[in-house]
Amino acid sequence: MNSLSALANVRVVLVETSHPGNLGAVARAMKVMGLTDLRLVNPKCAIDAEALARASGAVDVLESARMHNVLDAALNDCVLTAACTSRRRDLPHPAYTPRQAAPELIRTAANAPVALVFGSETYGLSNEQLMRCRWLINVPSNPDYASLNLGAAVQVLAYELRCTAGDSVLDLPAFTLADHAAMEGLLGDLETTLIELGFLDPAKPRRLMPRLRRFFAKAGLEPEEVAIWRGILAAARKRVSGPASS
Amino acid sequence: MNSLSALANVRVVLVETSHPGNLGAVARAMKVMGLTDLRLVNPKCAIDAEALARASGAVDVLESARMHNVLDAALNDCVLTAACTSRRRDLPHPAYTPRQAAPELIRTAANAPVALVFGSETYGLSNEQLMRCRWLINVPSNPDYASLNLGAAVQVLAYELRCTAGDSVLDLPAFTLADHAAMEGLLGDLETTLIELGFLDPAKPRRLMPRLRRFFAKAGLEPEEVAIWRGILAAARKRVSGPASS
Repeated sequence: MNSLSALANVRVVLVETSHPGNLGAVARAMKVMGLTDLRLVNPKCAIDAEALARASGAVDVLESARMHNVLDAALNDCVLTAACTSRRRDLPHPAYTPRQAAPELIRTAANAPVALVFGSETYGLSNEQLMRCRWLINVPSNPDYASLNLGAAVQVLAYELRCTAGDSVLDLPAFTLADHAAMEGLLGDLETTLIELGFLDPAKPRRLMPRLRRFFAKAGLEPEEVAIWRGILAAARKRVSGPASS
Repeated sequence: MNSLSALANVRVVLVETSHPGNLGAVARAMKVMGLTDLRLVNPKCAIDAEALARASGAVDVLESARMHNVLDAALNDCVLTAACTSRRRDLPHPAYTPRQAAPELIRTAANAPVALVFGSETYGLSNEQLMRCRWLINVPSNPDYASLNLGAAVQVLAYELRCTAGDSVLDLPAFTLADHAAMEGLLGDLETTLIELGFLDPAKPRRLMPRLRRFFAKAGLEPEEVAIWRGILAAARKRVSGPASS
C-alpha cells in the first residue's frame, strides 16, 4: 500500500465560511499537501475573484468543491470524522493533537473517506456540530492568542497528514468502520428505545445522549456492531410493546 | 528550563515580501504559536490596511517588526540560520524537513537567537541568500504542486517548533477507567439481559458475547459509563418482567 494515496480519502469540510479569501487559502493548503476533496456546508460567501486569487494554482480544488446544506450530508459516507476546534469545551469526546490523530486518520483513509471539519471564522463549530463528529482535534497554540486562521489550520492538519502518510507505516489491517449515517441511525434508534423504556425523559434529558454518543465515538463502530446493537434495541422495544398487543 | 520560552528566540526573517496580506498572515501565524520576533528585509510592500486586517490579533507583532536593508543585518546575532525553500538546489547545505530540524532549532534557541528565513513570493531566495544560511529546510509537499503560501509556510514551521518546544501533548486529564471487576459485572449483566430479551439463546450463543466484549474493550469503559449501561439494562429488564407482575 502506498499510504500517500490515502490522502485522496481525506475530506476537508468547511462549515459556514464567511471570507472568500479563506476558501482560496484552504484549497491551496490542501493541494500543496495532496488533498483534493473539499466540501462547503452552507457557505456564507461566494467563490469570487479573491477566492480564486488566493487559491493560486489550486483553483481546480476550489471549483470542484461540493456544496451541502447541512453538515451530515457532507459526512454521511465518512467512517472517521474529526472536528477541529481551538476552544476547550466541556465535551468529553476524545481529543487529540494533529500529530496524535494523524496515524489513525491515515490508516483509516487508506480504505474509506475520513473528514476534517472546520467551523466558521467567527463562531467556530457549535456544540451540536462538534457532537456529530467522533473526534476533536486541537492544534497546540499560544494560550494568550490561539486564533489560528482557517487556511492556516487546514495547512497544519494537511501537513501533518502528509508527513504521516509519507512515513513508512506498518501495514496493519484497518478495521472496517461504519459510516456516519449508520452511526447516526443507530444513535437515533437508541434514543427512541431509551425513551420507550422510560430510561430517558425527553423533557429532562440531562447529559445522557451526549454521554452515550461519546461512548460510541470512543469504540469506533463497525458495521457488524451496528447490526448487533440495532438487533438488541429492536428486541428491547418488542418486549416493551409486546405484552400490550398479545 | 521551560522550552516554550525558547520560542522567544526564534526569529522569522522575510526577504523582499511583495504582498501586504502575507505580512499580516505571517504575524498571525507566528503569534498563534508563541513567536514574536519578525524582521523584514527590503520589503516590496508596505504594512497597509490589508496587512493589519490579516494580522488580526497579531498587529503587535507586525508593528514591532524591524526593518533591514540586507539579509546579513537580520541574521548577525543568530547562532543558527535556516533558509526555507521548496525548490531543490544543488547546494551542499544540510537540508532537513521541519520535523527533523525542529529539535536542534529549539535546543539552540534556548540560549541564543535562531532564524528562519523565507524568500519572496515570486522568486524565493537567491542562491546567494540561501548560502548565507547554515541549513535548508524543505517542507514535504505534493511534487505536482509544491507552491506553499508564505503565511502557510511560516505556520507550518512555527507549529513544528511549538510542538517540539511543548512536546506537543495536550494537558488533558487522563480518563479514569473502570476496573476489571466493574467491566465483568457489566458484561454479566448484559448477557443476562439479552437472554431475558430473547436476543441471546444460551443454547446457541454464537459469537454474540465475544463481539460485545470486544466492543466494550475498544471503548475503554469509565466508571460513569458502567453506571449508565447498568441503568439502561435494569430499565430494559424491568419492562420485560413488568407487565407480568402488574
